[in-house]
Amino acid sequence: MKTRIRLDEARETAVDFLCRHGMPPEHAGMVADHLVYAHLAGHDYAGLPRLQPMAAMLRERGTGGTIRTLRETDQSAFIDGAGVNGYVTSTLAMDKAIALAKKSGVGIVGVRDSWFSGLLRYYVERAAEADLVALHAANSTARIAPYGGIDRLLGTNPIAFAFPSDDGPLVVDFATATTMWGDVLLHQRRGLPLPEGLAIDAQGMPTVDPAAALAGAILAWGGARGSGVGMVVQALGILGGSDPIVAEDGVWGYFFLALDPALLMPVDAFKRNIGALCTRVEASRPVPGGPPVRVPGAATRHKVAQGRARGWIEVDEAILASLAAAAH
Amino acid sequence: MKTRIRLDEARETAVDFLCRHGMPPEHAGMVADHLVYAHLAGHDYAGLPRLQPMAAMLRERGTGGTIRTLRETDQSAFIDGAGVNGYVTSTLAMDKAIALAKKSGVGIVGVRDSWFSGLLRYYVERAAEADLVALHAANSTARIAPYGGIDRLLGTNPIAFAFPSDDGPLVVDFATATTMWGDVLLHQRRGLPLPEGLAIDAQGMPTVDPAAALAGAILAWGGARGSGVGMVVQALGILGGSDPIVAEDGVWGYFFLALDPALLMPVDAFKRNIGALCTRVEASRPVPGGPPVRVPGAATRHKVAQGRARGWIEVDEAILASLAAAAH
Repeated sequence: MKTRIRLDEARETAVDFLCRHGMPPEHAGMVADHLVYAHLAGHDYAGLPRLQPMAAMLRERGTGGTIRTLRETDQSAFIDGAGVNGYVTSTLAMDKAIALAKKSGVGIVGVRDSWFSGLLRYYVERAAEADLVALHAANSTARIAPYGGIDRLLGTNPIAFAFPSDDGPLVVDFATATTMWGDVLLHQRRGLPLPEGLAIDAQGMPTVDPAAALAGAILAWGGARGSGVGMVVQALGILGGSDPIVAEDGVWGYFFLALDPALLMPVDAFKRNIGALCTRVEASRPVPGGPPVRVPGAATRHKVAQGRARGWIEVDEAILASLAAAAH
Repeated sequence: MKTRIRLDEARETAVDFLCRHGMPPEHAGMVADHLVYAHLAGHDYAGLPRLQPMAAMLRERGTGGTIRTLRETDQSAFIDGAGVNGYVTSTLAMDKAIALAKKSGVGIVGVRDSWFSGLLRYYVERAAEADLVALHAANSTARIAPYGGIDRLLGTNPIAFAFPSDDGPLVVDFATATTMWGDVLLHQRRGLPLPEGLAIDAQGMPTVDPAAALAGAILAWGGARGSGVGMVVQALGILGGSDPIVAEDGVWGYFFLALDPALLMPVDAFKRNIGALCTRVEASRPVPGGPPVRVPGAATRHKVAQGRARGWIEVDEAILASLAAAAH
């Protein structure tokens, strides 16, 4: 059963819960904004349901140390995340890259030693809304076997790009793994087989058994080319300060780039041209019997805008009850 | 029949041929270096066989005007390619981005109005050999239908990344189309059907008939995710100065980014970590019965190095004969 909850209530619920688990209020506010956004975007699993697992992480790892900038120029910053939650470090890092790009034309930021940061599109969209082009890549604990291999070497390794446009940002974000680790865990918990082609067992044989996949590896998406993109994300994460291969207790790396299109052309002309590209794609003919052709990320953007205008989201009652119970 | 030819002879053959077709000698030298590299890399089709089609383009379009920098800062340049061959403009643009990054930490270069530029890895590798991280994307004439669509809106849209490493650059480059336009033409000329799943006809139905594909569209690679990468390349090309959608006589756009890892960390540490990633991937266990796990681009790099040491390549005798005949 789902229940309707106002956006400010949902945010407050998340802030309260996280503060009770030791997170400083300004950090809790950043996480809460992201979780509400995830509901608006239609990714309910990435919203308030993330709070209990996050609390478990906070109990296990603590709230982290002091985030510090280790190296800085007019166009770059290298930040030690000090084990603080990625929703916080990535918000700070993207905003830093935006500020640098507004000042210097380009902003490049690396963040080492953080953890899970949610939806990458949330960050790059901030840059595009500030009329900047953005690239963000994030590596993480090795769970994915590169193309042709058995051993877990890469993280789920998502990458995201955003471009400002007359028509609202063009945002492309995707993971370079066939599926998420959490999704395999979910299938295991529910006793369901995985779809075919996502995972291998410890001997490298294809498997649909979640337990065998957890002992083996998830496959890189997209064959050799997709696995190559996974390698790019791994390398950009290394540039962000990660270990070469991130072991269970290893250091993750995040990379952010913001870039002012005015370096190359008038911003208005750039935004008009990106808008024209998106308009042409949306107006193009679908394959026979197929749905309308979509611009990547556009459906999500529209959902978020509509949700903000509406002012409420629907959240699983059981989730709200568990968060309330944790308050006592 | 193939015949052995020394690298300097192959280069001279290309330079002579291009100069006879009106290309200035310094431009011809840049193209020739690239074509010899293509042979070394094992992509013979992208080597001397490209000269005759290039001559046809030069006859049709001329050798282009004067390449000019329209906008420049300490970290960026926007260049009008003036219709000059892409092998030339991309070499100049990548070298400009490298020079800017060496001076300012970051170099961002856009090139508008150029044409075919060969192998993208050739350019980004130059940056990685100079200890820089590089990204290069190139859009072109619309031939590819984005995911779910029929209409040709995107170019073949390749993208390339390179990272310096202790072990030689890590280079990842790939096109975001299932196949190349030239490959469809080749199948048509030879009367061969295309492999399945690459193309659609003018009504959007799957086809293996090259003529139907040429009247229809080539498909984007990698489903929705791959098509999203194609959109990213299109948008980066727009940032490089292209039209939003590039019609037959439209303007292409190239985007180059070079970035000094020293902005974020000591270069030696970065190179060591990228080297460690590659070593771990190469040492990982392959799937049962499969070949050794490969680092993207590494086989090509080794082939090029071996070929340079050897000092010769093998070229189709018919190609050499046709180039010699064109001299009279």
